[in-house]
Amino acid sequence: MGCAVEGEGDIVTASVLPDRPGAVIIESIQGDGGRLSLEASKNCVGIAALETLKLLGGQPSCGISLTLKKGLPLGSGMGSSAASAAAGAWAVNALFGGPLTKEQLVPAGLASEATVSGYHADNIAPALLGGFILIRSCNPLDIQRLSFPGDLYFVLVNPVFEAPTAEMRAVLPKMVTMTSAIHNCAMGGSLVAGVLQGDAELTGRALDSDCIVEPVRGPLIPGFASVKQAAKDAGAYGCTISGAGPTCVAVTDDPQKGERIAAAMVQAFVSSGKLAVNSARVVKLDQVGAKTV
Amino acid sequence: MGCAVEGEGDIVTASVLPDRPGAVIIESIQGDGGRLSLEASKNCVGIAALETLKLLGGQPSCGISLTLKKGLPLGSGMGSSAASAAAGAWAVNALFGGPLTKEQLVPAGLASEATVSGYHADNIAPALLGGFILIRSCNPLDIQRLSFPGDLYFVLVNPVFEAPTAEMRAVLPKMVTMTSAIHNCAMGGSLVAGVLQGDAELTGRALDSDCIVEPVRGPLIPGFASVKQAAKDAGAYGCTISGAGPTCVAVTDDPQKGERIAAAMVQAFVSSGKLAVNSARVVKLDQVGAKTV
Repeated sequence: MGCAVEGEGDIVTASVLPDRPGAVIIESIQGDGGRLSLEASKNCVGIAALETLKLLGGQPSCGISLTLKKGLPLGSGMGSSAASAAAGAWAVNALFGGPLTKEQLVPAGLASEATVSGYHADNIAPALLGGFILIRSCNPLDIQRLSFPGDLYFVLVNPVFEAPTAEMRAVLPKMVTMTSAIHNCAMGGSLVAGVLQGDAELTGRALDSDCIVEPVRGPLIPGFASVKQAAKDAGAYGCTISGAGPTCVAVTDDPQKGERIAAAMVQAFVSSGKLAVNSARVVKLDQVGAKTV
Repeated sequence: MGCAVEGEGDIVTASVLPDRPGAVIIESIQGDGGRLSLEASKNCVGIAALETLKLLGGQPSCGISLTLKKGLPLGSGMGSSAASAAAGAWAVNALFGGPLTKEQLVPAGLASEATVSGYHADNIAPALLGGFILIRSCNPLDIQRLSFPGDLYFVLVNPVFEAPTAEMRAVLPKMVTMTSAIHNCAMGGSLVAGVLQGDAELTGRALDSDCIVEPVRGPLIPGFASVKQAAKDAGAYGCTISGAGPTCVAVTDDPQKGERIAAAMVQAFVSSGKLAVNSARVVKLDQVGAKTV
């Protein structure tokens, strides 16, 4: 599962390139610190645009020129690449009058994600569709949007720390005990139950109890255990790693309490992890996904 | 998770034994073919009764005499022992005026189950509470009843086959691949989503796609693969093993279609499995659980 949150995101503009049918160029990228390639076939927004053109079918009547303004930091565990891909696919679709639905655009985003973070829909599907998305299968694609009735808030604290991506992946076990699999299956079920019933407490508790990934990735993020404890001591229903980290995410139903949780998490990162913090935000569950602004 | 179904079940009577405070005796058992012990401490209904007395607390003012009439066959994978335990706990509680809730009686049933099929609430919790029960943890006990809005039917086909219990357990892997764990976690989430949304098709599909237990237990039940296929060909939304088998269970939302599915499953057991069939029933999801009759 994955979900989308309100607030900062990536902004893509797409304009017609009349004399180069089918071509996709990236005119400019802001906010990436010069780290992203301007070559369309090597950039997640470019790949999503190219794949969307394929999905639209036929001979393209024009090419597309893109600009990208990053609102989400790279390598933060907040699905930055998916945000770009979702915006790119949505912008290209919009340029051609919006013939494809968001569901139909997911494969374009999946192809983009495959080149940067693996073939999985956890980030791209919620970035496009908004809300919580249960992903049953990527191949064939089988996803379902789950509505959370009510308000849900996340506290996202992004420390100044370059997560060792290779190590973050390498540390994931190839095999897990049956006991762990059963526990996490129960937590997966609890998460769905929490979401569909609008139960923030249960949602947080389910996210808090992962016994497969968090125990091996948490120790790679300085101060993580203290941050998790601090969030819960401050009233969070649960706290875990956002994506592959290093951002930590806590769950609450009260934005005021969220501010206190954020402060406690920042303090724990500083004191226990010896890490400064890039950002600490209280954000609402997003129900819209990609949109034209 | 587990769920309860309407139809045949176990019937327990409890009566006061005035002169033996705290004692539990089993007066008679019908329908077990003489296989169950009449010694209370070695019988699931007796243990549940003894444990319920403990839960009631204080010095018992009397002893209890029990009779048990088995409606569910032993060793069938339909939770026969849990049915007895639930009825026993409920009957003893009722005899003392019903001070405990069904939730409070679950530990008594758990203690009983521990002696016959392991410490797990999958059968006893739904047998007591009815409906679908999501079990997040047995220790501490953390369960939730999930309502299925609408009608759901199960086709239960019990072949004449002594499931090799030891082998059924031994064949379960201690370790599973991460890929399998993720798949089954997604199916666990899908099952909860199907139940809470009253989506029989999704419920069936989630139950149909277990990639951890069914692939190793299925081959131990003669004809299972054909029975599963026959059920789906006849319109079932999914088919899997009930409990540890040998009973097979298919999912539908239409009792008439259920009869056709039952016939197809029986036919497959006979032709592919070379097994006769004890019973083939179309039963509705039960929403009540243990009750006084």
